[in-house]
Amino acid sequence: MKIQLALDRLTIPEAIRLTHLVESHIDWIEVGTSLIKEFGMDSVREMKKAFPHKTILADTKTMDNAKYEAEISFSAGADIITVMGTAPIVTIKTCMEMARRYQKRVMIDLLNTSSEQQKSLLAIEDAIFCLHISKDEQELNGKNEWQKSQIPADFLTPSHTIAAAGGITLDSFSQLLTSGINIAIIGSAITKASKPADAAKQFNQLAKGGVFINE
Amino acid sequence: MKIQLALDRLTIPEAIRLTHLVESHIDWIEVGTSLIKEFGMDSVREMKKAFPHKTILADTKTMDNAKYEAEISFSAGADIITVMGTAPIVTIKTCMEMARRYQKRVMIDLLNTSSEQQKSLLAIEDAIFCLHISKDEQELNGKNEWQKSQIPADFLTPSHTIAAAGGITLDSFSQLLTSGINIAIIGSAITKASKPADAAKQFNQLAKGGVFINE
Repeated sequence: MKIQLALDRLTIPEAIRLTHLVESHIDWIEVGTSLIKEFGMDSVREMKKAFPHKTILADTKTMDNAKYEAEISFSAGADIITVMGTAPIVTIKTCMEMARRYQKRVMIDLLNTSSEQQKSLLAIEDAIFCLHISKDEQELNGKNEWQKSQIPADFLTPSHTIAAAGGITLDSFSQLLTSGINIAIIGSAITKASKPADAAKQFNQLAKGGVFINE
Repeated sequence: MKIQLALDRLTIPEAIRLTHLVESHIDWIEVGTSLIKEFGMDSVREMKKAFPHKTILADTKTMDNAKYEAEISFSAGADIITVMGTAPIVTIKTCMEMARRYQKRVMIDLLNTSSEQQKSLLAIEDAIFCLHISKDEQELNGKNEWQKSQIPADFLTPSHTIAAAGGITLDSFSQLLTSGINIAIIGSAITKASKPADAAKQFNQLAKGGVFINE
């Protein structure tokens, strides 16, 4: 299982400093929506410059203007962009087409999609699908962190690459390890830990152990 | 009827230069999502600095992290932010709450919402509702500009403030004038006109005439 470090509500120098502490324990770096909206594509450019060997996901949460948003993100160094599953289908398909053109990837964020929308989106080839409990749902609505039982069976086929995001802690992570999820997106459990490197190391040890057990 | 000038796919200096040409003919200035994602909150800050007397809408298209996105946008000078109608309801309500706290406003973007979602959103007080045909739907899907008949009757009550966005031209604008819409969001019909000031003046003359006829 891969670990995607989600960086949010930080300045760019804070994000770089924090990532340096944990980089050997994580796989992908997510430049969070808050960094993009606060600092623009500089956030993606500077993270790629600081970590050129890492996969950078720009959490663009695209809803429209797919060609333009894909171009500015991929040009700034993003390896993966995100598009909302609730966007018009033409926007999602344009993101997929742009990713093929740039030889990059797209993560489809399933936040607040209906099961009908999810079923139709799952037919899209080469996408990464992100099951997402949003920050607001967690922090303001008391919606809890991931449980293995919340992952729809349709998603767990060998042909799908699935990520889970939203309040993942070391406790819930153990459950996710045997859930069939491919990527765990972890934010504050690392970034707000008193010792981020130790926290990231613990996640990583579980993740790599988990993969071993599953194989 | 108010005219909201939508600025997209421009640098900040281009957006400022263009807005200076047309400012006397438009009511609200929209700092488009593309400017926010490309240049961050500098785009909002610089537009407010250049046009302090104008209402500035930051098209944040918020899907999550409502408190943070509202704070950075209102602090940068936005008078209105946008939230997606397809976002979790807690996110939409948090935007409303933040707007009350800052004495600012929220536009709920109804892009790709179902009629059930629209019905439930219409109960939210003090919001501006935006009926939206997206750029991608227009440019890539051949979905046409606004027709008066496309505006659901539920929206057209005196208690609702309604905006329409998406490919509005001088031709379709005439129809909108008698449709009950309060705000017309106009982008390329002004920004890409050979003479932006003339185009904006024509829209404005129709808009102010339209209001007069309706009264």
